[in-house]
Amino acid sequence: MDTALDRQSPLTEDELRKVDAYWRAANYLTVGQIYLLDNPLLREPLKPEHVKPRLLGHWGTGPGLNLIYAHLNRIIVDRDLSVIYITGPGHGGPAVVANTWLEGTYSELYHSVSRDEAGMARLFRQFSFPGGIPSHVASEVPGSIHEGGELGYALMHAYGAAFDNPDLLVACVIGDGEAETGPLAGSWLSNVFLNPARDGAVLPILHLNGYKIASPTVLERIPEDDLLGLMRGYGYQPHVVSGDDPTRVHQSLAATLDQAVDEITEIQRRARSGGDSRRPRWPMIILRTPKGWTGPREVHGKRVEGTYRSHQVPIDGVRKDPEALAELERWLRSYRPEELFDATGAPVAELASLPPKGDRRMSANPVTNGGLVLRDLNLPDFRPYAVDVKQPGEPVVGSTGVLGKWVRDVITANPQNFRLFGPDEIASNRLSAAFEVTDRAFVANTVPGDDHLSPDGRVMEVLSEHLCQGWLEGYLLTGRHGIFTSYEAFIHIVDSMVNQHAKWLKVTRGIQWRQPLASLNYLLSSHVWRQDHNGFSHQDPGFIDHVVNKKAEVVRVYLPPDANTLLSTMDHCLRSRHYINVVVAGKQPAPNWLTMDEAIQHARRGLGIWDWASTDQGAEPDVVLACAGDVPTLETLAAADMLRQHLPQLKVRVVNVVDLMRLQPPSEHPHGLPDFEFDTIFTRDRPIIFAYHGYPWLIHRLTYRRTNHDNLHVRGYKEEGTTTTPFDMVMLNDLDRFHLVLDVIDRVPGLASRAAHLRQEMVDARQAARDYTREYGEDDPRVAEWRRIRETEPGLRSGQ
Amino acid sequence: MDTALDRQSPLTEDELRKVDAYWRAANYLTVGQIYLLDNPLLREPLKPEHVKPRLLGHWGTGPGLNLIYAHLNRIIVDRDLSVIYITGPGHGGPAVVANTWLEGTYSELYHSVSRDEAGMARLFRQFSFPGGIPSHVASEVPGSIHEGGELGYALMHAYGAAFDNPDLLVACVIGDGEAETGPLAGSWLSNVFLNPARDGAVLPILHLNGYKIASPTVLERIPEDDLLGLMRGYGYQPHVVSGDDPTRVHQSLAATLDQAVDEITEIQRRARSGGDSRRPRWPMIILRTPKGWTGPREVHGKRVEGTYRSHQVPIDGVRKDPEALAELERWLRSYRPEELFDATGAPVAELASLPPKGDRRMSANPVTNGGLVLRDLNLPDFRPYAVDVKQPGEPVVGSTGVLGKWVRDVITANPQNFRLFGPDEIASNRLSAAFEVTDRAFVANTVPGDDHLSPDGRVMEVLSEHLCQGWLEGYLLTGRHGIFTSYEAFIHIVDSMVNQHAKWLKVTRGIQWRQPLASLNYLLSSHVWRQDHNGFSHQDPGFIDHVVNKKAEVVRVYLPPDANTLLSTMDHCLRSRHYINVVVAGKQPAPNWLTMDEAIQHARRGLGIWDWASTDQGAEPDVVLACAGDVPTLETLAAADMLRQHLPQLKVRVVNVVDLMRLQPPSEHPHGLPDFEFDTIFTRDRPIIFAYHGYPWLIHRLTYRRTNHDNLHVRGYKEEGTTTTPFDMVMLNDLDRFHLVLDVIDRVPGLASRAAHLRQEMVDARQAARDYTREYGEDDPRVAEWRRIRETEPGLRSGQ
Repeated sequence: MDTALDRQSPLTEDELRKVDAYWRAANYLTVGQIYLLDNPLLREPLKPEHVKPRLLGHWGTGPGLNLIYAHLNRIIVDRDLSVIYITGPGHGGPAVVANTWLEGTYSELYHSVSRDEAGMARLFRQFSFPGGIPSHVASEVPGSIHEGGELGYALMHAYGAAFDNPDLLVACVIGDGEAETGPLAGSWLSNVFLNPARDGAVLPILHLNGYKIASPTVLERIPEDDLLGLMRGYGYQPHVVSGDDPTRVHQSLAATLDQAVDEITEIQRRARSGGDSRRPRWPMIILRTPKGWTGPREVHGKRVEGTYRSHQVPIDGVRKDPEALAELERWLRSYRPEELFDATGAPVAELASLPPKGDRRMSANPVTNGGLVLRDLNLPDFRPYAVDVKQPGEPVVGSTGVLGKWVRDVITANPQNFRLFGPDEIASNRLSAAFEVTDRAFVANTVPGDDHLSPDGRVMEVLSEHLCQGWLEGYLLTGRHGIFTSYEAFIHIVDSMVNQHAKWLKVTRGIQWRQPLASLNYLLSSHVWRQDHNGFSHQDPGFIDHVVNKKAEVVRVYLPPDANTLLSTMDHCLRSRHYINVVVAGKQPAPNWLTMDEAIQHARRGLGIWDWASTDQGAEPDVVLACAGDVPTLETLAAADMLRQHLPQLKVRVVNVVDLMRLQPPSEHPHGLPDFEFDTIFTRDRPIIFAYHGYPWLIHRLTYRRTNHDNLHVRGYKEEGTTTTPFDMVMLNDLDRFHLVLDVIDRVPGLASRAAHLRQEMVDARQAARDYTREYGEDDPRVAEWRRIRETEPGLRSGQ
Repeated sequence: MDTALDRQSPLTEDELRKVDAYWRAANYLTVGQIYLLDNPLLREPLKPEHVKPRLLGHWGTGPGLNLIYAHLNRIIVDRDLSVIYITGPGHGGPAVVANTWLEGTYSELYHSVSRDEAGMARLFRQFSFPGGIPSHVASEVPGSIHEGGELGYALMHAYGAAFDNPDLLVACVIGDGEAETGPLAGSWLSNVFLNPARDGAVLPILHLNGYKIASPTVLERIPEDDLLGLMRGYGYQPHVVSGDDPTRVHQSLAATLDQAVDEITEIQRRARSGGDSRRPRWPMIILRTPKGWTGPREVHGKRVEGTYRSHQVPIDGVRKDPEALAELERWLRSYRPEELFDATGAPVAELASLPPKGDRRMSANPVTNGGLVLRDLNLPDFRPYAVDVKQPGEPVVGSTGVLGKWVRDVITANPQNFRLFGPDEIASNRLSAAFEVTDRAFVANTVPGDDHLSPDGRVMEVLSEHLCQGWLEGYLLTGRHGIFTSYEAFIHIVDSMVNQHAKWLKVTRGIQWRQPLASLNYLLSSHVWRQDHNGFSHQDPGFIDHVVNKKAEVVRVYLPPDANTLLSTMDHCLRSRHYINVVVAGKQPAPNWLTMDEAIQHARRGLGIWDWASTDQGAEPDVVLACAGDVPTLETLAAADMLRQHLPQLKVRVVNVVDLMRLQPPSEHPHGLPDFEFDTIFTRDRPIIFAYHGYPWLIHRLTYRRTNHDNLHVRGYKEEGTTTTPFDMVMLNDLDRFHLVLDVIDRVPGLASRAAHLRQEMVDARQAARDYTREYGEDDPRVAEWRRIRETEPGLRSGQ
């Protein structure tokens, strides 16, 4: 199993002894955290009461993480590198915490966990302990930008961190369990998007310790030739370090790290001063060491070290079983703590001198506390990009195309800390103005006819929502900004990643030393109502529902009804901090309603009465037509127009909602509208016909505590769709203007009899529209061309 | 670029001519579907009115799909193979539809789309047309088990179909766009889980046509050596077919398919009669042909064939632009339709004779209509597996462990059409009884000490929720049964896959010839309340919310409160058809409440009053304590017990909900409880304190139309969590028994003053429990050991 590298021995005897001692210290502290309540230095014989009553945590990955950490420290010091450590096996919390305590960062940030015996006791006790710290490499851990509770995202986070960080080396440990996930498997080729001249380097370290919770890992069990072929196929130069003899592995890993860093340095030199823009063959390391290495070899006659049995807590029942207690003590003492820690409990001087100092410590690298290095974007004033709305409904222009021009100039104005991410949908979502000033990042072969590809591109396009999300997360977590644009339906692909990021944002709000990050901004286009080419599989507005389940203080959802409101909304999102902003806006040509000034005011309020479309003239209306989303807004305004023409005596109030969170009570969400304001706008007792972009029940959920909830009737997407025309889509879901008028007739007391004729007219109009569409394959032009409030006097347009 | 294979020419001149004609015919029909409303055979010059007003669909992938389809037909006939065709580039709908029409299946299933001129006109018109068929290879397409609107799942569906189908060859076309997704990248190594003796074969055909919507594809642009290394690394033997000269490509593809099938035959022979159980090197094909091949080379001076511009509709504006119209006509006529179709419009005899006949047609292979070949499971009576509940609360046994024994026997009783899927969590979720009768499927190396691995295993474990889901979908879609067990939080990883499967189920309910499938059964354990080792990242009960957004007729959600109810529920799920069943149940030791008979009755009702835990004795209660989920049920019963002791005059009714859908009105869900029954159980005006397993607002959403909704107060998970003790977790979210008692005191009119003392006692008890936990790191034993309704007379236990 040994490789040629094994035979190199770059470490002197003295260095070898020191790095091994450091590793032993980290391993000791790892085991201590899992097991000990007291007697942290084993100054007295181990007794049951020194052991935690509940043994929780993960040992198996610890020794490998500690080994890599120690060797990275060596090379950081040797070469004065800026390195961060991404722990794919994120359940190895105690290992990474141990290292951050050894190098002092932990105690600097958490004073009570001092670098002495008392601090060590607290370090041990707090781990996986109520009121203490989580068992994973969570956001509480200094130097972490990646929790890794949910597996699959380590390598994409690593690449995201490396983009636009030319002096950074991101060491990324990938567990062989995690390597089985789709998102991780799809991450290797991120190197096609990494520019060695402009970006930092990623050093993937695939740690093959052979087992998951219960099964062997696939990559550990395929032939090594295949594995090497796989890594070469991904474009890497693999280096294997393998063994279970610490001395040999230390030498081999040291030599391999030296070589990997040499290769990286040479790649960067060629790209940066040699002008070589070809895709280099980046190094990566395959480390084969036993799971739970240095832990108990056998427990109850069953092999533990090197097997899945070392995954969590290798020796259980320690408080009750004297033999187990003795075994634990032997294990702990095997690290010879008396050599590692001095009389005060601090690491002995020789160990303390080993790790890097100050910001060079991986646990203190400023980029891992992204908010600390975050700079505000230089945002061009968005007002000059406005659509010139002469009267409501004109001109007809797609929202995202208008936004694209502003995004283009955001890219120009922020050449090093802003990127646009999308799964091959930037142009499809009409943001292609970006390509007037930049390209798609692409470091593989290009051929004539390719559309805007270059290693310097600032648009990240890959057909993987996972990668877009993961890269952007890594980019944000290290203090930069971005927008992720996707087809609305397929953003569900990253539901679980959003969960984890939302958790990170929630928890870090409570961690004093963590600074707020730039928000994670989604621009969802090609939405449910306009899937003309694609049909049912592309129709799902449920991401909003998913996001609204997250902690209120970190989520925001916006449904701008037109281009100017979208501009104002995105400007707000790019200035915001520490949120997940979901913005849904159509790309197709659509009517515009608000002047820029009106749009700014409307977006700021989040919702408002549109007087110019209403006929209540400040009086109590007979009915409220509410809408959220561009297509529902169009249908609502068309319905209001028909009502105005046909039932001029009916007092109709039109309310548009941009900021969905305004609908919730203030007790549920910081954006929540106070009840009295809500009642003023939506009335206390009049029917509300709410035309909503997504699944209708969300509106009920958000408003069920409101006074007038019982009179609220919501139309939205009810999972009816196919490849059909835009107007047929709204009809399939009863969201069309005719049906909204029917809803009004049926809900306003006494109207049904008065408006029987109009009712029939609406029923007939629906049928006619459907018949026309089925016959001619396109929308009835009388419907399709309705674009403005025809009866409106421009003078009425004053906003609420 | 040519390979050695290129020089082989297995096709005779005559065969070559025929297969090319067949390909031309399919291409013609593909273009016709995208463009033509009329004049399908071009019997007259093409006029604007012959062209669809809205041009929708995807051309680019079509010629490649047609090429592969034609050549598979050849080899099916030659060797009498059973083959199915999985179209990864699922937007290539018109291509696959064209083939199914050519081979007659389409007309057999859709009589009006006959194999003549009138039928061809309908075939063209209906495509992407209102009231017609979707643009993708949707469930309406004969022979499809895979829509592919959302990319990434083709290869996992292929493997799922191949499992336990030893005579089946699954040809799986993978687009080079799709290949960039994580799920697809993680699918290649599925071959580690495919047993050549027992399972069928998968032939992946990676179609490199170079472009996605706008960007080049990564795999087409990395060096070919890397690509071959990648495929070898995945364990395949890659064969390259490449070119843009039809004659050469025909010969090369024919030769390559011959070779690939030879290799598969030999692999299966070695495994089946040679006893060779090693992992074979399966063949796969890399096909490099131009995107939009045979389409217009240039449009408006821009290259189209071979570029991203051929992705959708290569020539636009055809109705208005005579030059474009002429270009379209030239393109259509380039296929020489007059040679391909006879006077009636049917394929000429020579073409009609080419494809396989009957069930051998890929579009008519019975396994692609899974319900047709589906056999009921042989289900052992679950009652003997019951926990013997002597009184409510005893014994204390984990639910999933009990279920595991029954699942074990389900596996034994159904050795060929049932499998258990999980991401390395079968044992963790306590289903390890399965390993008494079977192993984990694993075809790579094994070593001594491995736990239950073998090529014959019927448990599918891989650390990828995507693979578990995709394999199971493929398995179900081809007429088999399964259970997917996962940690509750991480099932969100497959949210978007669930969407697509739910859409498939919804649409196929309306397709007469599609037969109902076995349900997709989730057993979610290691749930939000018991993440003792893992903490916040593992806490998310939102999958229920996600599923409830799907069409009501296809989703079911169950929260069995104990082991016997879980047994009864899973038996029901495994008998059901065409649903997505979500079952959430804990794995930790927990009290059991219901005897087997009671559990059966309770599960059948879906919800009910637990008289034995109530003190209303049939009268109108003062308060309803409702609960859903095992942990909330425990807390509710403990609260009821305390109320009984401390406020014996208070009439408390305990209601347990197993089937969450019972809460909805019958108008919203077929399981919905009629309003009068709901009112009888939940009262019309008494406070309801509802302790719910997940996010509390879901209960509001399900019940907001119910009479007593205004008095409903829900406690559930509000995104507060960390690594802590079980009881601390419920306290963090105000779901604990003490808080439920506080809720009762605060909500029952007039009780606050009467029960001031108890109120304080509860506040103190909470604090004491928290203090104990923070001090000792475990739950206060007085809390932890509460397990039964201590005051209950066994005689009272009668169910509702």
